[in-house]
Amino acid sequence: MSTVAALPECALPESLMAALRALLGDRLSTAAAVREQHGRDESYHEPMPPDAVAFARSTEEVVAVVKACAAHKVPVIPFGTGTSLEGHVCAVRGGVCLDVAGMNAVLEVRPEDMDVSLQPGVTRKQLNEYLRDTGLFFPIDPGADASIGGMVATRASGTNAVRYGTMRENVLSLTVVTPDGRVVRTGRRARKSSAGYDLTRLFVGSEGTLGVVVEVTLRLHGIPEKIASAVCPFPDVRAAVDTVITIIQTGIPIARVELLNAAQIDAVNRYSKLDNRVAPTLFFEFHGTPNHVAEQIEMVQAIVGEFGGSDFQWAETQEDRDRLWNARHMAFYAAIAMRPGHKGISSDVCVPISRLADCIVETEEDLKSSTLFTSIVGHVGDGNFHVLVLIDPEDPASLEEAKAINDRVVARALAMDGTCTGEHGVGTGKITYLEEEHGEALDLMRRIKRALDPDDIMNPGKIVRL
Amino acid sequence: MSTVAALPECALPESLMAALRALLGDRLSTAAAVREQHGRDESYHEPMPPDAVAFARSTEEVVAVVKACAAHKVPVIPFGTGTSLEGHVCAVRGGVCLDVAGMNAVLEVRPEDMDVSLQPGVTRKQLNEYLRDTGLFFPIDPGADASIGGMVATRASGTNAVRYGTMRENVLSLTVVTPDGRVVRTGRRARKSSAGYDLTRLFVGSEGTLGVVVEVTLRLHGIPEKIASAVCPFPDVRAAVDTVITIIQTGIPIARVELLNAAQIDAVNRYSKLDNRVAPTLFFEFHGTPNHVAEQIEMVQAIVGEFGGSDFQWAETQEDRDRLWNARHMAFYAAIAMRPGHKGISSDVCVPISRLADCIVETEEDLKSSTLFTSIVGHVGDGNFHVLVLIDPEDPASLEEAKAINDRVVARALAMDGTCTGEHGVGTGKITYLEEEHGEALDLMRRIKRALDPDDIMNPGKIVRL
Repeated sequence: MSTVAALPECALPESLMAALRALLGDRLSTAAAVREQHGRDESYHEPMPPDAVAFARSTEEVVAVVKACAAHKVPVIPFGTGTSLEGHVCAVRGGVCLDVAGMNAVLEVRPEDMDVSLQPGVTRKQLNEYLRDTGLFFPIDPGADASIGGMVATRASGTNAVRYGTMRENVLSLTVVTPDGRVVRTGRRARKSSAGYDLTRLFVGSEGTLGVVVEVTLRLHGIPEKIASAVCPFPDVRAAVDTVITIIQTGIPIARVELLNAAQIDAVNRYSKLDNRVAPTLFFEFHGTPNHVAEQIEMVQAIVGEFGGSDFQWAETQEDRDRLWNARHMAFYAAIAMRPGHKGISSDVCVPISRLADCIVETEEDLKSSTLFTSIVGHVGDGNFHVLVLIDPEDPASLEEAKAINDRVVARALAMDGTCTGEHGVGTGKITYLEEEHGEALDLMRRIKRALDPDDIMNPGKIVRL
Repeated sequence: MSTVAALPECALPESLMAALRALLGDRLSTAAAVREQHGRDESYHEPMPPDAVAFARSTEEVVAVVKACAAHKVPVIPFGTGTSLEGHVCAVRGGVCLDVAGMNAVLEVRPEDMDVSLQPGVTRKQLNEYLRDTGLFFPIDPGADASIGGMVATRASGTNAVRYGTMRENVLSLTVVTPDGRVVRTGRRARKSSAGYDLTRLFVGSEGTLGVVVEVTLRLHGIPEKIASAVCPFPDVRAAVDTVITIIQTGIPIARVELLNAAQIDAVNRYSKLDNRVAPTLFFEFHGTPNHVAEQIEMVQAIVGEFGGSDFQWAETQEDRDRLWNARHMAFYAAIAMRPGHKGISSDVCVPISRLADCIVETEEDLKSSTLFTSIVGHVGDGNFHVLVLIDPEDPASLEEAKAINDRVVARALAMDGTCTGEHGVGTGKITYLEEEHGEALDLMRRIKRALDPDDIMNPGKIVRL
């Protein structure tokens, strides 16, 4: 499943190949290994290699590649780190994969405005490393060390979204190359604007289907004076979720609050050599001044007590915090390590928080009948959670069962006014759910796609099928 | 200027009028007074009355009106309270004004989810009145008691945006009637989603040009345990703005921070019978627990001192706070009261905060040569400020001078990577600035408009001209 049985020959017209070769030299590749690596992401989805891979180094090169492909109506698939989870980079109709990982310069940090402009190939960890001495940080943290361009494309979020928002709230402006090769800036750097349609938010989450992101301006946040983290087990999932609802209703500006179910805690303990009690557990983080953090902790501890939580374990030193959150970030890999050789499928539903406990409890009940390894992690402050299901690549029945589980999780979430994807995006993997989720709205999305990419060359077959 | 010399006859086809009359009875009006009232907003813009006004009471009626108009390719102009400032409701090509003020039910408040669903005619004050006993509030507060539908349309904000965001961040989901009469929901109620193009954000700020908003789901926020307000004069505008930059960089979660220049303080003092020192002044508000508010105040006072501010005047009681913020909210009317019979023109630029002091100082210098009354108020935490210019309706030269001032303010802001409108919207009044602000991006906006409203019947002549 994870290898391409017989890689077809590059099927691009020779005139296009010649034009791209003249432009990029040996940064145009049709080598089998390169094509295969660029046709897959970190998910279970069948790899679909592009015909060729173009490694761009500048906006001008992106424009030239897009124009050349547009002239031949050949698909263009933007590529960052290949860490997405829904087949976003699969070349469903072949074409040219446009790898922008080499466009990885941080262009300008503006401390007074608390923003930064950068190229799309910069990864989130590279950005925070770069910012280290500025007192600022970028909070959006999907599991992988994804490229910022890819995070724009999938409208990524992560563990800090409950306090700092998602990519939706943290992208100030984009520069994109349109399917006809124009360089367009989606908005000014001002913090707010009412000057016309919100093109920035339209491109955030558009998964490369409307254009190629070549520059990103992001909001930054001040590194808090004090950070404290803790883990706390609960008698059951409902008690944990009710704790979170109360924390948020009380207005406590919690920075992170993550739920791991018992199965996931077991996996994390084994993988990260920790000894957390095997029970539904919340991971907390508090940001602020020392006084304010102390006050938040006191309030949260009182709420936790009301709902039967106990055994707070604190991590106040940077080292302890890193260990704790590293364990959380490794949850996906920890789960996969429970069944060596298996692959993970992750659901990604998000529901109104009042329905979250029901949704998780019903899902756990559902999972009891499965023979597969499953676990749950959730960004519970947002109502978003993932069911991880491990499948055996040699056993097609396990994939079918995993897909059936995911179908049921999605149906449950949609019935609760939720969404099929809170942060991973649609790609090819969730495209069939959109009809039910959006109804007539999907027609509006199709119209927008047709209006901005009439020849359907930008990452075709993702989000909407024309 | 503010009256229509000779109101033309209603020019709608009789078959359309018959259909609308059958649908609405006496809730369809062609009375001159009704048409005139619906062709104007609170601004200086020349009124342009619609041919008829339809008072809708339900989504079904909106659908029927839109379908009837679409069949005749007759324009539909949604109307809430008529309090916008850029000619948004002017019937530039005639047509039917669709007044949704009667659709003013709060449909459901969900305290656990901290959200509310409501009809578009509910005003912001009505909403907060309705929420009074829930412990929740809706923070977006433009000067006028605008309808929520209108606030969606203009992507409104106000004094709380620095802490709570604008309509962009606070609309969870919309139901809209499309130009062909379909009822479309733009998204689910989940707090975040990566399920396709962000239609919600596309409709927020679309000024009725893509469809009619018939239902809105908004985020709500907990009323803080403690609120404290203060005013503080500064030696000059730059000192005040530098104070704000430092407060924000320090990460103090200030709820409101508003700048009034000396001329505006003078106007406010006269209008609201206050005795603030006539100097550039910041209005502050702090939200949180008592301890946290005390800590924020201590930190802000230290910063204020660094930049030469003094004479903090506190307003801790509800009554004192109301008086203070009421004075701020009345700034527009206070300025107009300086020249009885005059009308106000308000610029609305927003720039990166690092450029805000330059932009205001250069603007004040520019204003010195004007013979008109001018004043400045600013949502300085966002980089947004308004120059109010009073014009004499009997003196066309004063309008020309005011427009020239506004042109220069906009040019200055655009040169600083700012926007021509931070919160008022484009309407007809700022449409000519968009070419310079957006360049090629304006073509994308036109394509979106054409894709979603191919016959250009939804509030034509606003944002983009086709």
